[in-house]
Amino acid sequence: MLYTSKENNKIKYIKKLNYKKYRDEFNEFFIEGEHLVEEAYKNGVLKELLLEKNSNFNLNITTNYATNSILKYISSLDNPSSVIGICNKIKEKKIGEKILILDNIQDPGNLGTIIRSAVAFNIDTIVLSFNCVDIYNPKVLRATQGMIFNINIIQKNIKEFILELKEEGYKIYGTKVNGGNSLKNVEKPEKFAIIMGNEGRGVSSEILNLCSDYIYIDMNSKCESLNVAIATSIILYELDK
Amino acid sequence: MLYTSKENNKIKYIKKLNYKKYRDEFNEFFIEGEHLVEEAYKNGVLKELLLEKNSNFNLNITTNYATNSILKYISSLDNPSSVIGICNKIKEKKIGEKILILDNIQDPGNLGTIIRSAVAFNIDTIVLSFNCVDIYNPKVLRATQGMIFNINIIQKNIKEFILELKEEGYKIYGTKVNGGNSLKNVEKPEKFAIIMGNEGRGVSSEILNLCSDYIYIDMNSKCESLNVAIATSIILYELDK
Repeated sequence: MLYTSKENNKIKYIKKLNYKKYRDEFNEFFIEGEHLVEEAYKNGVLKELLLEKNSNFNLNITTNYATNSILKYISSLDNPSSVIGICNKIKEKKIGEKILILDNIQDPGNLGTIIRSAVAFNIDTIVLSFNCVDIYNPKVLRATQGMIFNINIIQKNIKEFILELKEEGYKIYGTKVNGGNSLKNVEKPEKFAIIMGNEGRGVSSEILNLCSDYIYIDMNSKCESLNVAIATSIILYELDK
Repeated sequence: MLYTSKENNKIKYIKKLNYKKYRDEFNEFFIEGEHLVEEAYKNGVLKELLLEKNSNFNLNITTNYATNSILKYISSLDNPSSVIGICNKIKEKKIGEKILILDNIQDPGNLGTIIRSAVAFNIDTIVLSFNCVDIYNPKVLRATQGMIFNINIIQKNIKEFILELKEEGYKIYGTKVNGGNSLKNVEKPEKFAIIMGNEGRGVSSEILNLCSDYIYIDMNSKCESLNVAIATSIILYELDK
């Protein structure tokens, strides 16, 4: 099928997936670009393809076509890809032993980058508070570089979740500039969760008070803090050693 | 002085500083927000202030005022700050012993974040290839969180520069997925330079071949690579230990 009109119901449907409201309603999302689409296909969440007219992308999946102007209409990119994939949302799985908890992360680039680093450093599960930016936001998806399909991501009331983890013997790490242990000397327990928080305000104090251990990253005193994706990645790198 | 018209020469001048061409011509740039302005003031590069009408910001510096719509006109932000600082470009200084070389970094957020991390982990000098994004780009400046004023940043023909460093006994680190040493076991010499490269293509092979040592970051094989700001920051963290 070749779509040429913005008024077509299918095109209207995909366009709506730019918004969280509709992603939640339809339980689907879309991705752009060959690499992301291949990763989605490998991981069994790709539902169908929308390709630019006359282009080719050989996957054993329902494939439709659209004009360049339709792809531009749908896309969130200045230079849209010729490949769009419509996907089923990823199913939540059981948590593992190495957990990253994110409290109110707002920047899509930060969240996507953190997801990518979490896969690199062998985190089993990412747990998001309900006020984090949506993982199916196109900017988040792009920043994950397809790694979103390689990790379990769930949403929880993180306060209740931390209390459950503590009962099950997880060490709960928070970050604190004063009164913590240097990351260099951190223990590497089998079961742990590390909590990282909002770009401006950090982890909320109510949540931070639930931690069992606090760590800090040694740095030059001229620098008050690191970008949250950077700090998270350095901690995950060290805990994975 | 209160500016109310976009046609005013002063306002036209500041607006032009959104573009590299004019920043280079006038040898000035502008910053937005109290934190960046304070950092610029502390470091002696703040030349004058432009505040929103009826707002206050007490610094011993030439201060003018403008209407909210004028600030919106100048700003690169959706929600402009009530504080704009016009600055002289930062003077280049002599290089130190811990150097970060960046080859063709294109994303302003990445460059700004790298600058912030370089200050945190005690890099003396950042050396940029001529094709990197401009450090005075408003998005770069914001991502540095003011740390741009706390580090020496210079532009060079990096090929020639690396050859000079080698003659002066610097160890030159590049990154390589295969055939390098794990970052975990990296030597921490007194004088070193680490070269990091473009988001998509990495460091150009001509430059990479000039390195004396190659390192890689251990990670899960599902993840092909890290975001360049993340990889750079992890390496700087480890070299700073």
